[in-house]
Amino acid sequence: MSFYDKLKFTDDGLIPAIIQEASTGRVLMMAWMNRASLESTIKTGKTHFWSRSRQKFWMKGEESGHTQTVRDIAFDCDGDVLLIQVDQIGAACHEGFKSCFFRSVEAAGASFRTTESQLQKPEDIYGKKK
Amino acid sequence: MSFYDKLKFTDDGLIPAIIQEASTGRVLMMAWMNRASLESTIKTGKTHFWSRSRQKFWMKGEESGHTQTVRDIAFDCDGDVLLIQVDQIGAACHEGFKSCFFRSVEAAGASFRTTESQLQKPEDIYGKKK
Repeated sequence: MSFYDKLKFTDDGLIPAIIQEASTGRVLMMAWMNRASLESTIKTGKTHFWSRSRQKFWMKGEESGHTQTVRDIAFDCDGDVLLIQVDQIGAACHEGFKSCFFRSVEAAGASFRTTESQLQKPEDIYGKKK
Repeated sequence: MSFYDKLKFTDDGLIPAIIQEASTGRVLMMAWMNRASLESTIKTGKTHFWSRSRQKFWMKGEESGHTQTVRDIAFDCDGDVLLIQVDQIGAACHEGFKSCFFRSVEAAGASFRTTESQLQKPEDIYGKKK
């Protein structure tokens, strides 16, 4: 049985993909894939996604150079979530942080703190292209 | 600013929560929360979710005893995904595996392999209650 047969995509044809840094276990981001982006991810060994806001197929790092090389693709018991181990170049987050999860809750939800330092300013990552 | 103000729930009032084991970095599962289950998670220090299939509020481990004690709650740059660090008792997966991500893709998607051993049979976890 192909692993595609085990997967359940949403009515919009999407499945969430959790991206984890293979070397550190750090969860870097979550983004959505459709079948085409998943097939491209497997074929090329670089993560590809589907942008719901831009309604666009994209390769992670296509603008920033911050690509992700795939080390492993796992899927969960229900077949409706992917967990992908990668080697990350640069910052995974478009805001210039290594991980998109750079803020944590404090004081029972009343506030939050930034938990990591910014590697780059977004304008230094994307600004050149404008 | 409250961290709730930074969050974006779906039209159904839900937000996905990635659950990671604090001590090992292992990603255990992903499940959905609504605001009430997130508030209960923060208030009690045990993870609570919203089941889309059962349309039901639930505490992880309420039947199995496999509860999750919260160590940290982070949220991503877009405010539409949570990453929660926990101490996991027993198996996170209802199929008796430590992690729900117990299978990985092989051979360019043509097949998959089981990557971890089952800790318990599901009937030994849930069967007693029937």
